[in-house]
Amino acid sequence: MVSSQLPPAPVIYLVEPFGGSVRRQNPNMPHVFWDDAAVTRGDGIFESILVRGGAPVNLDKHLDRFARSAKLLGLPDPGREHWTRATEEAVADYCRERGDDNAEGKCTWTLTRGRETTGVPTAWLTVRALPEDVLRQRERGVSVATTARGFSIDNDVPWMREGAKTLNYALTMAALRWAGEQGADDVIFVDPETDRVLEGATSSVLVVKKGGRLRTPAPGAGVMAGTTQAAIFEHADSLGWKCKAKDIYLSELFKAESVWLVSSTRIAARVKRLDGTKLPAPDNAPEIRQLIEGALA
Amino acid sequence: MVSSQLPPAPVIYLVEPFGGSVRRQNPNMPHVFWDDAAVTRGDGIFESILVRGGAPVNLDKHLDRFARSAKLLGLPDPGREHWTRATEEAVADYCRERGDDNAEGKCTWTLTRGRETTGVPTAWLTVRALPEDVLRQRERGVSVATTARGFSIDNDVPWMREGAKTLNYALTMAALRWAGEQGADDVIFVDPETDRVLEGATSSVLVVKKGGRLRTPAPGAGVMAGTTQAAIFEHADSLGWKCKAKDIYLSELFKAESVWLVSSTRIAARVKRLDGTKLPAPDNAPEIRQLIEGALA
Repeated sequence: MVSSQLPPAPVIYLVEPFGGSVRRQNPNMPHVFWDDAAVTRGDGIFESILVRGGAPVNLDKHLDRFARSAKLLGLPDPGREHWTRATEEAVADYCRERGDDNAEGKCTWTLTRGRETTGVPTAWLTVRALPEDVLRQRERGVSVATTARGFSIDNDVPWMREGAKTLNYALTMAALRWAGEQGADDVIFVDPETDRVLEGATSSVLVVKKGGRLRTPAPGAGVMAGTTQAAIFEHADSLGWKCKAKDIYLSELFKAESVWLVSSTRIAARVKRLDGTKLPAPDNAPEIRQLIEGALA
Repeated sequence: MVSSQLPPAPVIYLVEPFGGSVRRQNPNMPHVFWDDAAVTRGDGIFESILVRGGAPVNLDKHLDRFARSAKLLGLPDPGREHWTRATEEAVADYCRERGDDNAEGKCTWTLTRGRETTGVPTAWLTVRALPEDVLRQRERGVSVATTARGFSIDNDVPWMREGAKTLNYALTMAALRWAGEQGADDVIFVDPETDRVLEGATSSVLVVKKGGRLRTPAPGAGVMAGTTQAAIFEHADSLGWKCKAKDIYLSELFKAESVWLVSSTRIAARVKRLDGTKLPAPDNAPEIRQLIEGALA
């Protein structure tokens, strides 16, 4: 039975960009036009949101960042209530159709500058099962290769839009393919001149140090502010952990109790190997996992 | 009659990525799926080709660059004969349907890494009329604002793919919107530390100097090798012009006989105003135009 091996189809909702109706889209039919700015220029923004227990996780932080990205790129304000409602509707469909009120999944929002011939932004969301490799890496950890970011951003330029979560990931994908050729699952970007740690390809770096300390590279040049990292820090802080966003250097990763890549849908993958060197499993791995999961509850 | 004001529909051909059939696509129907790498990651390449006299112009150079971009991104070789044939078919349709054997137009090739759920690259081409602003700028010239490139590329990184003409243009579009806010039509990117001239948003910079000299910034970091610039240099060289690709600094643009932005479909737009300063029209503008047009014949 070949069909049973195909992943179940995603739930797709097209969203009217100015707050009108949402409507279900057949996932077997394309819906993006040849002249959409997403296709011709990568000119759009997105968010990836974990779905768990029948609901989107960390919704406010994603709404905040989505609105911030839109503003940076001069796209219309997405509208909080609007995307919240569309997400709830799609997640309800997803859970019902899978016969599982607690189905886990990934919800992706996309907002583009729209079709050249209409000028109206295009907006849609998808909800689908988490890919196998995401679940496996969450469970078993990842082998990571460090590399330079490959470019440096000049934030003095008036039109610079660093911090917007755009669709321009071709270079990041090239870095991930390179990592795969080295036998690694992921990358951590590091400043080649100073060895300052930046971020994963699609994740924040979280470092656990002795004495109940959590560290993450401060957001800014080359470091996207992470929604999952922020949720973890808020939660950990309330439990008495000492949390700081500050500069971290590569040598610290090798000396840390543990190093994690945290992101919305993979949640947390422990770095078990870094540039070929094994990072020993920490004694408190279950505690850290519980801490991270607790932040998303 | 509103309908007469709508631009005529483009001719679209879907191309089988491994050299199979090509087929006409209804431009009123979308053909790109929600999980196409072009949409989710901007992970694909393109070329824009002028159509003139019922044929694509400068085809070999576009085929070369398309193949080079594909190789850099680890996409399958597009196949020269295949895209040539598809282009000829689409251009023939375009001319026939407009009742003009010499219709001018713009042909765009797109090749993406394809759908996440199939892994098969997606490929198509469109042929359509040139936008009004392209024709106007070709005729009347452009007002240009200079700005920094906004990022610098580190070509020492093993996975770096500079020189590939990818779909990642969100930052370039931000620069163009900024230029519009300054009352300019286009930008020229300039290194802010050295004032070295790089390129236009989607064009090469061509400088005409006294004594029959043509200059363009040497391709490399921050400067995409231009197909139109290359064709102009080959032609001009054969006519006795002294052509050189070398470092050019901003002050030279103000002292030049004339400055042009050259690209495939706009061909050449004279820079008539640079950062608010008027660049006087040269006596030999018709000669330069003839030279450039001759290179594309």
